[in-house]
Amino acid sequence: MSEHKRLTAPIAPGGTIGILGGGQLGRMLALAAARLGLKTHIYSDEENAPAFQVAALRTHARYDDEAVLAAFAGACDAVTFEFENVPSATAEFLADHVPVNPNPRALAICQDRLAEKNFIASLGLKTPLFASIASADDARDGIAKIGAPAVLKTCRMGYDGKGQAKIADAGDIVQALGSFKGAPAILEAFVDFSFEASIVAARGADGAFAAYDPPENAHENHILKRSTVPSRLSAAQADEAKAMAWKIAEAFGYVGVFAVELFVGRDGALLVNEIAPRVHNSGHWTIEACVVSQFEQHIRAVAGWPLGDGSRHSDAVMENLIGEEANDWRALSARGGALHLYGKSEARAGRKMGHITWLTKKDGG
Amino acid sequence: MSEHKRLTAPIAPGGTIGILGGGQLGRMLALAAARLGLKTHIYSDEENAPAFQVAALRTHARYDDEAVLAAFAGACDAVTFEFENVPSATAEFLADHVPVNPNPRALAICQDRLAEKNFIASLGLKTPLFASIASADDARDGIAKIGAPAVLKTCRMGYDGKGQAKIADAGDIVQALGSFKGAPAILEAFVDFSFEASIVAARGADGAFAAYDPPENAHENHILKRSTVPSRLSAAQADEAKAMAWKIAEAFGYVGVFAVELFVGRDGALLVNEIAPRVHNSGHWTIEACVVSQFEQHIRAVAGWPLGDGSRHSDAVMENLIGEEANDWRALSARGGALHLYGKSEARAGRKMGHITWLTKKDGG
Repeated sequence: MSEHKRLTAPIAPGGTIGILGGGQLGRMLALAAARLGLKTHIYSDEENAPAFQVAALRTHARYDDEAVLAAFAGACDAVTFEFENVPSATAEFLADHVPVNPNPRALAICQDRLAEKNFIASLGLKTPLFASIASADDARDGIAKIGAPAVLKTCRMGYDGKGQAKIADAGDIVQALGSFKGAPAILEAFVDFSFEASIVAARGADGAFAAYDPPENAHENHILKRSTVPSRLSAAQADEAKAMAWKIAEAFGYVGVFAVELFVGRDGALLVNEIAPRVHNSGHWTIEACVVSQFEQHIRAVAGWPLGDGSRHSDAVMENLIGEEANDWRALSARGGALHLYGKSEARAGRKMGHITWLTKKDGG
Repeated sequence: MSEHKRLTAPIAPGGTIGILGGGQLGRMLALAAARLGLKTHIYSDEENAPAFQVAALRTHARYDDEAVLAAFAGACDAVTFEFENVPSATAEFLADHVPVNPNPRALAICQDRLAEKNFIASLGLKTPLFASIASADDARDGIAKIGAPAVLKTCRMGYDGKGQAKIADAGDIVQALGSFKGAPAILEAFVDFSFEASIVAARGADGAFAAYDPPENAHENHILKRSTVPSRLSAAQADEAKAMAWKIAEAFGYVGVFAVELFVGRDGALLVNEIAPRVHNSGHWTIEACVVSQFEQHIRAVAGWPLGDGSRHSDAVMENLIGEEANDWRALSARGGALHLYGKSEARAGRKMGHITWLTKKDGG
């Protein structure tokens, strides 16, 4: 394994942050970088990537084109990514040329649900019961260990409910494995949770740690619909969630923002569902309710700057605008709140097109 | 006079707002437009305009190049500007091709201190005593009317204290006129004010009006140093300031954000110093302390959208970073608050390089 480049000093204003991926997260990262006087260079394989519209520099190319990647690395002072399905070879290649954060090891672990769950368990943190599934034998053993109902997920590339199947018995597993075309999978116990929450946190290049107040999250059709802060978590649970995030960040030697998605059990236990090694949809409310948003916090971290003030000054509710909901932009623009539209030209079903954040109440101070 | 194009419907997300001028105000307007899913096209005669770094489209050309202006107009759904010294011929030319707001008449009046003061007086609003000065005769009559000390200002193109001279007697006026190379000037009474304030307000294409809470402003070397909200204005004075802004907006048939700079007399009277037909430095705190900032409010107005919620959820102090102050970005980045750097490569003396906003306290709710 070759030596990865490391940040040796904070990147001065006027410097360039490269971002792999050009969706709404890359777009909001670019807007945050601009506030700090940093340029962004968006690299995307999508021709009309929304983030291209707000970036100083734009590269449209495949993620495995090493000549283009080398030129990109040469034009950036640091590189990060906005989605966790960046090919790990791409991240490794870039990391030999330019500091890449979050580091490729954290990325690789989070790209594989089984590696991720084993990593979480190795830290002594709770997850739903899980088992590795690659064969009919695994199916029988898995269902015996996990029980039913359960959920079978592909280890890689799933998001927003894609690559998932509900499981009642071993036969369902075999059938789902077939629909996954033999891709390795993980069987997870179905958690009868009280509600879902997440913790969005950051670790700086100097090892400093900062966590946002954990929002409560509601999903519809496996897609985040609404995040609310404060959540129903008790102060002790919120502290526990922050401590879990700190443990994960330290174990990864992480630099940047990440999210830990949590199931809150009816017994009050916090179970880690998954880790997103990037800014996260459940942290969008930080743009309005905190002085320094998750996007600026991430840019600060990957640029080697000190973390900013992520304390929350207001209560907030964030709602996603999914698919055709954003077509109603005329009515939405008159509803109050902070409307965000992502510059996507086509409103496909299930596609995140924008969001609205309402500040619902001010803290007593 | 030709027929100006008017907005007939709100500009749909994906549409393009053209902005004349590429400084920090254009940059922050572009960032606000991006949030709403609108593209921006920056037109600047400066090669490395800071706003180019965050805009989807960029034109670098002279403001009097009609072929380039026509192409620009054709590529935009609406046009606005970030500085009031846009040549009025440029605004008029564009307005024949594409909706331009604020309207060229408001721009023309605000470009000329004498026309502006006459306009303000015609609305029954108070200003410092003033007199038109073009000759030695005017100097004698002016000093007799205004008294001393007074300030002589060129009618056009002055900002941040440029084109101004302190006046003790008629001889000073003649000397200053000489240094202005015969440019028409206005003599204004020196106001022994208690403090300075401003009102930043918006009028929508539908005639709706919204004003931000008025900040108190402190200048150093004729350049804004600090804005603080709330100000020392009483609730009645704040209401009076908002009513003054409404009157001005209606008289102009204004669409967009503007600022009215005020002297607050020791007797409590509010005197209009000048009107800025654009987003304003004393409104930068609205980015953090309001759900919809002055920049988004302006974009909403010129795009024909309804105005947003400009109510203030927090107390705030904004400080400009001028000239070499921004060179200290390492220390500034660790000071807390919301740091904004404008992407300017050269820190010339007196140049606005960035600002910091602190939210100092939360409202009781």
